[in-house]
Amino acid sequence: MKLNKQLLLKKRPTGLPDKDTWEIIETNLPQLGEGEFLIKCKFISLDPAMRGWLNDTKSYIAPVQINEVMRAGGVGEIILSKNSEFHVGDHVYGQTGVQQYAVTNGKGYHKVDPTLAPLPMYTSTLGMTGMTAYFGILEVGELQEGDAVLVSGAAGAVGSVVGQIAKIKNCKVIGIAGGADKCKYLVDELGFDGAIDYKNDDIRVKLKDHFPKGIDVYFDNVGGEILDLALGRLALHARIVICGAISQYNNTSPVKGPSNYLALLVNRASMKGMVVFDYAKDYGKASIQMGQWMRQGKLKSKEDIYEGIENFYETFLKLFSGEKLGKLVLKVSED
Amino acid sequence: MKLNKQLLLKKRPTGLPDKDTWEIIETNLPQLGEGEFLIKCKFISLDPAMRGWLNDTKSYIAPVQINEVMRAGGVGEIILSKNSEFHVGDHVYGQTGVQQYAVTNGKGYHKVDPTLAPLPMYTSTLGMTGMTAYFGILEVGELQEGDAVLVSGAAGAVGSVVGQIAKIKNCKVIGIAGGADKCKYLVDELGFDGAIDYKNDDIRVKLKDHFPKGIDVYFDNVGGEILDLALGRLALHARIVICGAISQYNNTSPVKGPSNYLALLVNRASMKGMVVFDYAKDYGKASIQMGQWMRQGKLKSKEDIYEGIENFYETFLKLFSGEKLGKLVLKVSED
Repeated sequence: MKLNKQLLLKKRPTGLPDKDTWEIIETNLPQLGEGEFLIKCKFISLDPAMRGWLNDTKSYIAPVQINEVMRAGGVGEIILSKNSEFHVGDHVYGQTGVQQYAVTNGKGYHKVDPTLAPLPMYTSTLGMTGMTAYFGILEVGELQEGDAVLVSGAAGAVGSVVGQIAKIKNCKVIGIAGGADKCKYLVDELGFDGAIDYKNDDIRVKLKDHFPKGIDVYFDNVGGEILDLALGRLALHARIVICGAISQYNNTSPVKGPSNYLALLVNRASMKGMVVFDYAKDYGKASIQMGQWMRQGKLKSKEDIYEGIENFYETFLKLFSGEKLGKLVLKVSED
Repeated sequence: MKLNKQLLLKKRPTGLPDKDTWEIIETNLPQLGEGEFLIKCKFISLDPAMRGWLNDTKSYIAPVQINEVMRAGGVGEIILSKNSEFHVGDHVYGQTGVQQYAVTNGKGYHKVDPTLAPLPMYTSTLGMTGMTAYFGILEVGELQEGDAVLVSGAAGAVGSVVGQIAKIKNCKVIGIAGGADKCKYLVDELGFDGAIDYKNDDIRVKLKDHFPKGIDVYFDNVGGEILDLALGRLALHARIVICGAISQYNNTSPVKGPSNYLALLVNRASMKGMVVFDYAKDYGKASIQMGQWMRQGKLKSKEDIYEGIENFYETFLKLFSGEKLGKLVLKVSED
């Protein structure tokens, strides 16, 4: 009989989650009910949004409850099935949670093909991360050819894809990232027109240099000071996409509001929030386009993969320390 | 020979303007050049936006320069003309500035008809104030029939018109104003569905009561705490119109940014700035509609008129103290 290692939320964190936030337990696998199937989870998606799910506050999705398996997207292989649409050997993506085995009736799951792309990529560029980037920059950001685009968290999972899509659309793209290596990666590997190192550069000065006529679209993953500086450099009719605010997620003091928000008035600009689930009906169309760009070599996908469900805690913190490149993924079981 | 009393900007204010901010001088009237005409200014429009024009910062319009006549909209009568389109006896609206006589070549001026409406009304509901309300709520706010609408500065020039237009469009309208009298005025005189007295009510509780399903459109004239509380009560896909931020215009400390701005993400909501000049090509169409609503008794216009260019300083401060109802107008010359 197999045992299932599961990561539970034990305690709501204040500030950064620590070891006491989580507990790993081992449970027996349940019997499958009619219509259900059992997944051996392989790769778990680690995302900044997960930090928000730990807070007991009204949001776009219910908080994870104490003693519940931590919510997460994941890919795995079906090893047992009483469902006529999902078969043993199929690979699937869905909200598996942070555990080694998941039982589901298939709601919210879809099949993925490991012969077309490596499995971890279905948690990143070919998964929710990619969808967030695609709909965020094209629909919410109303991207136009030739726009001057700024992306924060640019070496991250979403930001790196946003910037590449904007390049495909013939925009000028500048990314903000932490450290010289990431900045070099943006320009040399991903083809960004420039990069700003928020740890070492004077961001205000660099924004002025890179955007002499102002920013048309700012895709914000970080919030805080950088959002304020971007507001101070908007072009007329600029669009700000609020995708996240990683600088604020572990705050123990109130969130810093953008004190330059009246730049929206001066520039007749807009700031708009997004949640990727709203675009579910168009995921198919977007996936085809993303896959095509990848085959054409126009879009690169980068996963930073760590191993072991026991290492969830330290790995999760890399989202906030920035010690990772591209999409953070945790491998939770052996092949 | 007539003398022209002119109000000059003498010193950029820190915080609220005081007497040293201004100087009144008397000058001789200039000779008219070819194509020019002379206006006897009658009513000057006093607007919160004027405070912004006193700051030496990049904005949607150049700052007023030191020793320059203070910029202002005004209505008056043409008393001398070398312009073939504008004749003696015509009444006009334009950027006269705060002075008793203005010389212009007519650029940016349009004729108004004092037999259709009292002259001061052309600075308010039939002028830029009304246009701001009209395009702000209908275009920027993308108002839909049945929306739940919140307006701040609701007893003010723009806010009172915004609320009435939303009522005409069959929306639920709640206004925020300072003091029981203004709140009573909103409900009893203007037909708002409810009012919140920000000086005495618990705004958070009242918003919860009035908007059980959340706010669809928030028209913001004030910024500060009220903007934050409104963000905390948004409905899905809500729109916030940033028209002004009167609570912040006289700050000597940095503007307070809305720390609840991540509600935009949670609710897939937008916050958009506006400047009325962008809608100039449609002023005509809007004016016809506004005039029609006024004749039908659906839209009321309220002007609070003070007299004497010498009283500009004290009168201007009423914009910020709230000691006025509706549109603040200064009469600068006798009939």
